[in-house]
Amino acid sequence: MQELLQSLKIDTGGLVPAIAQDADTGEVLMVAWMNADALRLTLKTGLAHYWSRSRQSLWRKGEKSGHVQKVREIRTDCDKDVLLLKVEQIGGAACHLGYRSCFSWRLQKESWLEEGEKIFNPDEKYGPR
Amino acid sequence: MQELLQSLKIDTGGLVPAIAQDADTGEVLMVAWMNADALRLTLKTGLAHYWSRSRQSLWRKGEKSGHVQKVREIRTDCDKDVLLLKVEQIGGAACHLGYRSCFSWRLQKESWLEEGEKIFNPDEKYGPR
Repeated sequence: MQELLQSLKIDTGGLVPAIAQDADTGEVLMVAWMNADALRLTLKTGLAHYWSRSRQSLWRKGEKSGHVQKVREIRTDCDKDVLLLKVEQIGGAACHLGYRSCFSWRLQKESWLEEGEKIFNPDEKYGPR
Repeated sequence: MQELLQSLKIDTGGLVPAIAQDADTGEVLMVAWMNADALRLTLKTGLAHYWSRSRQSLWRKGEKSGHVQKVREIRTDCDKDVLLLKVEQIGGAACHLGYRSCFSWRLQKESWLEEGEKIFNPDEKYGPR
C-alpha cells in the first residue's frame, strides 16, 4: 500500500482527485477527493470511499442514500495525479440532487442549463434539510 | 462572461479542473486546469485551451502535436467546481506519451499496469527531448 501511495502525486493536503465513471455507459458521474484512508478502504471493500473536504471526514459514497459505487477498475493518468474509478452505480444515481450524474448542467451561451436525468427526489430520500 | 465566471467555484489560484471526455466514445481522455482566459479562449475558438500549472502559461491543447480538441459541449457539476468538456479529439490521441487517453495505467493489485492504445510515438512527434 505504501508503494502505491508513493507512486501517486498526492497534493499538499494529502488528497488526489478521483473521477467516478459509469463502467457500463461511460458517463462521468462525479468528481470527489481521496486520501490514503479513502483509497485503502476502497481497495479493501470494493466500494468507493472518498474524503469530504467540506465535512473534513471520510465517507462511503451512498452511506445515506444506499447508492453505493462498486468499483470495477481503478486507473490513473500519465502524471499519476488523478484517479479514474470505473464503477457500477447502485441505485442509478450518483448525485445527491437525485440526478444520474452530477454533471447535469450544460453550458448554453453563457448560462448553465439544468439537463439531467432525475432518478430520485432528494427531499423524499433524505427528508427535509 | 463575467456572470459565467461568477457562477463557477474557482479555486484560490484562479483555476478550475477540466475533464476532457471523447464525445463519441465516452472515454475519459485527460484532466487539466482552466483559468478565466483559458475558458474565454475555449469559448471563442471552439478549441480546448488550458492553463499549465507547471509552465505557468496558457496552452491550446495540440498546439505542438496538432492534436487539438474540438469542443462539442461543456458541462459542470452540482458544486460548479469542475468542468467536463465533451470533445472531438483530432489525431485520436490526447496523451503526450502517444496514448489515446492519459488514463492508460490500470491498478492491478497494488501496481500500475501500463495498458493504453498507443496512437503515435512521442519521440517521432516531438523529436528528442
